[in-house]
Amino acid sequence: MAAGISANKRVKVAILGASGYTALELARILVRHPGAEVVAATSRAEESTRFSQLHPSLTGQLDLDCVPFDATQIKKAGVEMAFGCLPHGASQEAVGALIAQGIRVIDLSADFRLRTPEAHKKWYKEDHHHPQLLAEAVYGLPEVYRDQIAKARLVANPGCYPQTVQLGMAPLVRNGWIEPHSIIADSKSGVSGAGRSLKLGSLFVECNESFSAYQTGIHRHTPEMEQVLGDVGTGPVKVFFSPHLVPMDRGIFSTIYAAPAKTGLTTENLRSAYREFYRDHPFVRIVDHLPATKHTMHSNFVDLHPLAFPDRVVVLAALDNLTRGASGVAVQNFNLMTAQKETAGFFY
Amino acid sequence: MAAGISANKRVKVAILGASGYTALELARILVRHPGAEVVAATSRAEESTRFSQLHPSLTGQLDLDCVPFDATQIKKAGVEMAFGCLPHGASQEAVGALIAQGIRVIDLSADFRLRTPEAHKKWYKEDHHHPQLLAEAVYGLPEVYRDQIAKARLVANPGCYPQTVQLGMAPLVRNGWIEPHSIIADSKSGVSGAGRSLKLGSLFVECNESFSAYQTGIHRHTPEMEQVLGDVGTGPVKVFFSPHLVPMDRGIFSTIYAAPAKTGLTTENLRSAYREFYRDHPFVRIVDHLPATKHTMHSNFVDLHPLAFPDRVVVLAALDNLTRGASGVAVQNFNLMTAQKETAGFFY
Amino acid sequence: MAAGISANKRVKVAILGASGYTALELARILVRHPGAEVVAATSRAEESTRFSQLHPSLTGQLDLDCVPFDATQIKKAGVEMAFGCLPHGASQEAVGALIAQGIRVIDLSADFRLRTPEAHKKWYKEDHHHPQLLAEAVYGLPEVYRDQIAKARLVANPGCYPQTVQLGMAPLVRNGWIEPHSIIADSKSGVSGAGRSLKLGSLFVECNESFSAYQTGIHRHTPEMEQVLGDVGTGPVKVFFSPHLVPMDRGIFSTIYAAPAKTGLTTENLRSAYREFYRDHPFVRIVDHLPATKHTMHSNFVDLHPLAFPDRVVVLAALDNLTRGASGVAVQNFNLMTAQKETAGFFY
Amino acid sequence: MAAGISANKRVKVAILGASGYTALELARILVRHPGAEVVAATSRAEESTRFSQLHPSLTGQLDLDCVPFDATQIKKAGVEMAFGCLPHGASQEAVGALIAQGIRVIDLSADFRLRTPEAHKKWYKEDHHHPQLLAEAVYGLPEVYRDQIAKARLVANPGCYPQTVQLGMAPLVRNGWIEPHSIIADSKSGVSGAGRSLKLGSLFVECNESFSAYQTGIHRHTPEMEQVLGDVGTGPVKVFFSPHLVPMDRGIFSTIYAAPAKTGLTTENLRSAYREFYRDHPFVRIVDHLPATKHTMHSNFVDLHPLAFPDRVVVLAALDNLTRGASGVAVQNFNLMTAQKETAGFFY
Repeated sequence: MAAGISANKRVKVAILGASGYTALELARILVRHPGAEVVAATSRAEESTRFSQLHPSLTGQLDLDCVPFDATQIKKAGVEMAFGCLPHGASQEAVGALIAQGIRVIDLSADFRLRTPEAHKKWYKEDHHHPQLLAEAVYGLPEVYRDQIAKARLVANPGCYPQTVQLGMAPLVRNGWIEPHSIIADSKSGVSGAGRSLKLGSLFVECNESFSAYQTGIHRHTPEMEQVLGDVGTGPVKVFFSPHLVPMDRGIFSTIYAAPAKTGLTTENLRSAYREFYRDHPFVRIVDHLPATKHTMHSNFVDLHPLAFPDRVVVLAALDNLTRGASGVAVQNFNLMTAQKETAGFFY
Repeated sequence: MAAGISANKRVKVAILGASGYTALELARILVRHPGAEVVAATSRAEESTRFSQLHPSLTGQLDLDCVPFDATQIKKAGVEMAFGCLPHGASQEAVGALIAQGIRVIDLSADFRLRTPEAHKKWYKEDHHHPQLLAEAVYGLPEVYRDQIAKARLVANPGCYPQTVQLGMAPLVRNGWIEPHSIIADSKSGVSGAGRSLKLGSLFVECNESFSAYQTGIHRHTPEMEQVLGDVGTGPVKVFFSPHLVPMDRGIFSTIYAAPAKTGLTTENLRSAYREFYRDHPFVRIVDHLPATKHTMHSNFVDLHPLAFPDRVVVLAALDNLTRGASGVAVQNFNLMTAQKETAGFFY
Repeated sequence: MAAGISANKRVKVAILGASGYTALELARILVRHPGAEVVAATSRAEESTRFSQLHPSLTGQLDLDCVPFDATQIKKAGVEMAFGCLPHGASQEAVGALIAQGIRVIDLSADFRLRTPEAHKKWYKEDHHHPQLLAEAVYGLPEVYRDQIAKARLVANPGCYPQTVQLGMAPLVRNGWIEPHSIIADSKSGVSGAGRSLKLGSLFVECNESFSAYQTGIHRHTPEMEQVLGDVGTGPVKVFFSPHLVPMDRGIFSTIYAAPAKTGLTTENLRSAYREFYRDHPFVRIVDHLPATKHTMHSNFVDLHPLAFPDRVVVLAALDNLTRGASGVAVQNFNLMTAQKETAGFFY
Repeated sequence: MAAGISANKRVKVAILGASGYTALELARILVRHPGAEVVAATSRAEESTRFSQLHPSLTGQLDLDCVPFDATQIKKAGVEMAFGCLPHGASQEAVGALIAQGIRVIDLSADFRLRTPEAHKKWYKEDHHHPQLLAEAVYGLPEVYRDQIAKARLVANPGCYPQTVQLGMAPLVRNGWIEPHSIIADSKSGVSGAGRSLKLGSLFVECNESFSAYQTGIHRHTPEMEQVLGDVGTGPVKVFFSPHLVPMDRGIFSTIYAAPAKTGLTTENLRSAYREFYRDHPFVRIVDHLPATKHTMHSNFVDLHPLAFPDRVVVLAALDNLTRGASGVAVQNFNLMTAQKETAGFFY
């Protein structure tokens, strides 16, 4: 486990935006990570609040004070790597200031995910303030961009929904086995995906015992999916994306439909191709059983189950949106960036 | 409310198979229905158990003894109409015996839903024991077969999932606006859809905090959908059906995708066409907001929300699987069969 | 059902404070109530919003516009009776204005529950603005104050928790069978009890999969319990009250402990005494099985199950906090105040 | 972390009774434990089934075959320590056979918890088959019996409910600050406490959205509580124990009431006394905030919050019933028995 990293070689890290669920999940992983040490945490809303007051489950585990963001102070604390858990939009300034201080950043917001300022503006309705950093940022999906991630100064951590579609479709797109414009991703997410801010729709009594759709066909995670699958294949890919809300804390499940581009595909073909594609990737499991989000809960695994039908290919994909969907893959990226074992800090 | 039906004109009804959730839901509606009186209930497993012991919420409301099935005794009790809540397969004998006694039946099982013995055998893997009754049975979807239902001796109450797809697609199929082989129904159900029998997969800890798929592409509700939509349109319709399990008690939500058969369709076109199609049907609501199963909970409403995109039509459909999906539509059929107001006995 | 009340004799009612869960529950009951007609609804936050926009489940059922509160306008609309669903504190002015217009009020807030301005100030930390109305208000627990309620201009609808303790302990206190200072009420509530306002603690991810205590020993429902039990018995009664939050929408369960004041009490004694005490009260069920909140869901029943042990008496009490705990008992009070059948408008 | 235990010094362990939730939780902890290696697993019902087929979340993590129990084979596999996850009653024979083979056992059933055959028979209605082992067994509550556990051949792992009451009351009982016959423990458990067997009451739709009581005043965990608190104090202690079922997967919350034996106790006194009592015990947290089960989820912590009132002492206690309540404390005992760090294998 993390061989060669002794306790005094732990990489000093900061968590920006301590109050939300991705920060909590990051902290849970990092407090037990043999190669990391959380030495700073920032919070806009709460000056000098202890991390464990924001998140009582960490009482006695991470009692660090959360302070307002200040890149110079973070540098002085010896931080080598920062995890950004700020809201979309708010992340750009902080990331720019840290990079200027020589601190590498894994940004969990969407601010650096799309490759061009134009794409960013189209989907996020705002001009991008750091187009050069945007161009430099590496999209943090290790199964596709592992080598670039290892060397990056700035990693744009991928979205929770997109990973199910990117990883679920990559082998088919790479092999040219599906029509690239036929993809429909019907995705379902636990409520933590909506964050910890105060919204009527996030109240217990609004969500509980209810299943609903939102942003059908217009969700901002769509271009990330198309960008990565475009890289994986040989031409543009289109995804129709339809997200839904499930009355549970965590977990994303995507049922992804596509039209086959060749005849005779069998489920067995698909499984073999998927196992081959992900052979060197420890966090992708091609499972023989139908997936369920609970099987991936609190783990960094993505479970994939491809199925072939006469006129249809269907891939079922499940992951934990807070772990693999956000903070887990961020730590996976951290491991790659700091030359640790890709699985360091994960225990199941 | 149920004008003209005085207390001594209540139709005497029986509930067969009292122990399950559809029987409970039926009883909840019928004990307050001004034109019905539950005078008999049967249960295989439990001899002489009070209905309210099987379902404690009805303590003081329905304390009737449940007895083993005996068509002659049911006739002697003055029953005019029976609701069958028996498991698939077990229903055929009971229905045959009741019809022979001159008692009309609304059968909530799947035993009389498919029109031919061949189709039944293909999907249910058993020979049908009453092919003549099968031919005579009317499929109990009031929005499509209202007149035949009114006169039927035997109504095959529709499945919970199928209704979302049938009602969700009917206006599009009738108008010829979609490619009839392009339909994908991605459906999500609360756990009560699995019934009250003891199965590992129905345990709280297995379902709770988990979202999963089952019987992807091979579920037995598929042929019902295709049969009804074939009637509605002008030729065969194919549906790819993909059901999922949601950690909640009740509710079905279907996200239904199809390829448009003509260009220029707008969401506004669709809403108008849907409102026109369902103008005389009090239990179908074309809603302007995105549906949620909770909005239909404990009601007999189906909420539909059609959306047009450049290359795609999407319909969102929600209902309560125990009420509209089973026992509510059974009472709606009962109202039609006994010439009561279609909405009698429903209050929200 | 509500014999003698024809459609044109429906009592015209208003709902004040339309946006919350108790207003929704009231509307659900009232839209189907044969002796009531909702003709006005007010909302502070939302000018001219339709009721069904605030509560989409009522689409097509109650599409009334919600307007800012104005007692004169409410009078002009012909309202005879108003239901107040305003927050504590905000209710006093509105109630005063309506009473001045000759409109009778059932106030669901806590503003008129305690009998003296001193008690009110002690627990609610504010001076009461209408001490005379406070003195006049009748506490709306029909099983104890039925006759006074029938004649009241102003009914202070009881709290959700208090009813479980008041009804659960009343027979024991009346008979002098328990030590009046020994009562411990360990109560558990679904999340809707916290209302629909935006609070971190009401978010799905905060409540779900968690059980917690709050305001142990200091909750403001304590004096209501003691006030009513003091009326029922022959001297002061003290209650130690300890509320908890349960990850479910609705339901209150109280486990109430007391020291017996006499020896030889048996469970059978208690059940008989409880059945006798509540003989004429249709909404209290003394059940032989252990209660569960689900048995009372969406109903106006209170289920009680008393148990005797050598040194301890325990009463288990369950109800639905939105129905019997708030809006259901409000309609029960409405029925009494308008000389309708006590059960009018309730169906299970 | 587990200093001095190199990979080839991992203690070989077996899990008996692999199909249930405590076995799953054990496996989750042990697969990442630096000083343990799971080399055998047994299952009665399922011959030669892989562990990960019983528990798909462990796919790729523990794919070991589960075989029928055979003490000789377990010995041959080099097992030094066995964890018994068999049902109560079934455990005695297996434990006897393993001890005879020189294998130490941590038994998670209730079979060896009560000290005398008479007590066992009184509460479990059966003669004990191994009275000598019963006498020898050490009750596995590390905060009370740490030294005996370290040397034991057979540890009777404590019940989930009892630990909240034992740890919650121990400082008060030790100090003589409460009346020893006045304890009332009102406890609430998630559904996994009922195990993974097929029971109507464990179905999702029965438990979900419901709160209920069971075995009020007669539950078999009562004598364990009294036995341990009797050891801690200076005379017999009586507990009135009242368990309840909460619609959530995991977590136990106990609200424990007692009458103070001295005047003048303050909450501050209590907190200091508790912190002193548990100073050397890493898994007990005396928290300043009101506990919630979610704060302890998936961890081995017990959170305690004592409160003093004029005539009443109340202690709030929370833990995760599968981790600290069963499999976590079993691993804590394993660590003590194998001279590893008490916290080895735990990460939060």
